[in-house]
Amino acid sequence: MSASTNSLLLGNQTHLPSLKPKPISQSFLHLTKPSTLTLTLPSTRTKPLSIRCAASTTERVINFAAGPAALPENVLLKAQSELYNWRGSGMSVMEMSHRGKEFLSIIQKAESDLRHLLEIPPDYSVLFLQGGATTQFAALPLNLCNPEDPVDYVVTGSWGDKAFKEAQKYCNPKVVWSGKAEKYTKVPSFDGFEQTPHAKYLHICANETIHGVEFKDYPVPKNPNGVLIADMSSNFCSKPVDVSKFGVIYAGAQKNVGPSGVTIVIIRKDLIGNARDVTPVMLDYKIHDENSSLYNTPPCFGIYMCGLVFDDLLAQGGLKEVEKKNQRKAKILYDAIDESRGFFRCPVEKSVRSLMNVPFTLEKSELEAEFIKEAAKDKMVQLKGHRSVGGMRASIYNAMPLAGVEKLVAFMKEFQARHA
Amino acid sequence: MSASTNSLLLGNQTHLPSLKPKPISQSFLHLTKPSTLTLTLPSTRTKPLSIRCAASTTERVINFAAGPAALPENVLLKAQSELYNWRGSGMSVMEMSHRGKEFLSIIQKAESDLRHLLEIPPDYSVLFLQGGATTQFAALPLNLCNPEDPVDYVVTGSWGDKAFKEAQKYCNPKVVWSGKAEKYTKVPSFDGFEQTPHAKYLHICANETIHGVEFKDYPVPKNPNGVLIADMSSNFCSKPVDVSKFGVIYAGAQKNVGPSGVTIVIIRKDLIGNARDVTPVMLDYKIHDENSSLYNTPPCFGIYMCGLVFDDLLAQGGLKEVEKKNQRKAKILYDAIDESRGFFRCPVEKSVRSLMNVPFTLEKSELEAEFIKEAAKDKMVQLKGHRSVGGMRASIYNAMPLAGVEKLVAFMKEFQARHA
Repeated sequence: MSASTNSLLLGNQTHLPSLKPKPISQSFLHLTKPSTLTLTLPSTRTKPLSIRCAASTTERVINFAAGPAALPENVLLKAQSELYNWRGSGMSVMEMSHRGKEFLSIIQKAESDLRHLLEIPPDYSVLFLQGGATTQFAALPLNLCNPEDPVDYVVTGSWGDKAFKEAQKYCNPKVVWSGKAEKYTKVPSFDGFEQTPHAKYLHICANETIHGVEFKDYPVPKNPNGVLIADMSSNFCSKPVDVSKFGVIYAGAQKNVGPSGVTIVIIRKDLIGNARDVTPVMLDYKIHDENSSLYNTPPCFGIYMCGLVFDDLLAQGGLKEVEKKNQRKAKILYDAIDESRGFFRCPVEKSVRSLMNVPFTLEKSELEAEFIKEAAKDKMVQLKGHRSVGGMRASIYNAMPLAGVEKLVAFMKEFQARHA
Repeated sequence: MSASTNSLLLGNQTHLPSLKPKPISQSFLHLTKPSTLTLTLPSTRTKPLSIRCAASTTERVINFAAGPAALPENVLLKAQSELYNWRGSGMSVMEMSHRGKEFLSIIQKAESDLRHLLEIPPDYSVLFLQGGATTQFAALPLNLCNPEDPVDYVVTGSWGDKAFKEAQKYCNPKVVWSGKAEKYTKVPSFDGFEQTPHAKYLHICANETIHGVEFKDYPVPKNPNGVLIADMSSNFCSKPVDVSKFGVIYAGAQKNVGPSGVTIVIIRKDLIGNARDVTPVMLDYKIHDENSSLYNTPPCFGIYMCGLVFDDLLAQGGLKEVEKKNQRKAKILYDAIDESRGFFRCPVEKSVRSLMNVPFTLEKSELEAEFIKEAAKDKMVQLKGHRSVGGMRASIYNAMPLAGVEKLVAFMKEFQARHA
């Protein structure tokens, strides 16, 4: 960002001039000069500190990244406003003792709001952890299995496959269905695969971020003592979920609910407490449950950000309302693809297309680089498909506004008109 | 923070009124109404967004927390200014793909600045990980040992003891010296303990956060093929360190260099690549080294914050200068304790007193609660000692300004005058 040039005096006045807000002109939006508040702060330093409210100075992009991904603008601005001094506490959330009353109020509200959003039953624990879903790939078998125990994996994409491979170190996992031969474009019918009779759990990846394949309903473990486990990293809090159908739901926060560095685990309490002796203490659910996620220092600022997002989702009317918005966004994008007479193509079977990650290709694949380049010029970024599959991918998580998808669709039609 | 009431119209004007900054009055500092910029941003949302620059509204505390701990004010303000839109990228650091050019530039500069600060030799890798030092307690033996391998631990406080206990799961660790009987107030003379001849490594905690005991020099492993390993969580980047003396240095960021949720591992490259088969992939140094800490999504915002701190430490003149400041701060505090004629007491042997964490008690222990309460009234917070040891503790990390320690010392003398 360029150095500040325009500054606003707060001087000795006790408040800013109060004026009625109006929309600002496009011309302002293209300013490169940031507006600046220059203040001498009550601090132990003598030189004045400058706060640039960068939000006011340059245009935001429309961010289709698969994760870390766009966050709600009001959440970012709230976090910006509180970053230096959280709610009069005199410190940043990043500076708070994780055992102090300020942070405890933050993590407790975050958990309570998440429980409200997902209607999490009281016999489930909510843990705020570190290490991403990839750490859970090991934690699950270490906490739930003995070395010889059979467990089942339905593999509908790369993430389910990674979870299976990690489990091979710790128990006896079996791939009961794989979509690999069909390039991960399907979810099996639930009577279309044979479950292992005594499998301790049945594992699915509820939404495959790379391939754009999403479970719309959930299989039931054949073993009455087995549980269903879902990696919901990329569709967590994007729609209501009946938590009681699952033994464990886990998710990295960096798609729908926060920044990277926070992993949320929702686990039925009776499954806690059986970690194997070789389990690293940080992978033992019991330790984190007994200590309310405060056994060691948690990722405090990330948990705070998740809390702001949960608050925002509740303010939107909860996950039923959020799902409606996500369905509408996804529909206009998939419709644009399906109505392009093959100019754009989505390989995923219609019934299981993800509301979150929309992979598509161009019939004329030689135009894909140009498509991505022109979109970026128009402030629509991160549309390149994952390196393992190519093509394009538009990730349209909760924080992607309808207008962002509408802009993409308009560009797609205009691009097709020029290149058809 | 109270809802915004004072707002500033940007309206159709193309820039803010340009006025010469002046210091602001105390009266302004005690305002409860935040100063607000209300803008309609170039976004897909229609309702106006509000940016509150909270820094301008309430006084900051002097934060003696042991970690998460105070961060440099200029670093916080820089982060605040960039939070919504990082350097004109159109997105927050929290929204960036970890594989995009923007974040790659952030993590690469952070590593390069850290290498410069600590003069890290080229045959050492720098890893930005998650899970805190506690995760490393398991990762170290899993990566460096076979189950039967002997390893040595010098236990000078609670953290060293925790590291030893976790290692018992994975190899054959021995406590070669423990300060427990003397309530963790000493570091042994290096010929004062017997090392195990073939120990794979000798582990120390370079600074015990709870007990305030700090190594001023480092022991040499007796086994010519063994290495020295140090948990430097609470004195990382507080002074120059000869990295070449160590096989592995690891540290949670949340004391001296950033927010919680980032763990930095500095490891000699020849030690990488020997993880046991049962090692969770996220604990395998080789995976993170091969992928430049991007095997899975790293804690991007935390790494960005560490980068801002490293930049600030370099701007201060590097770790030699930082150490001088830390020595000066510690000296006036320990002097105040030692010159109090026993009114204040520090149990730690003078030669190994920590420059970072200063535990002390009151001769009249019944006054300790009052001391902490009065200090808090005077904006000096988090002075309560760890629940396991009681008393008081002043953590005075890099970001604690000299004036903060001077204010504490003045208060201690005034308190003593009233209660002696």
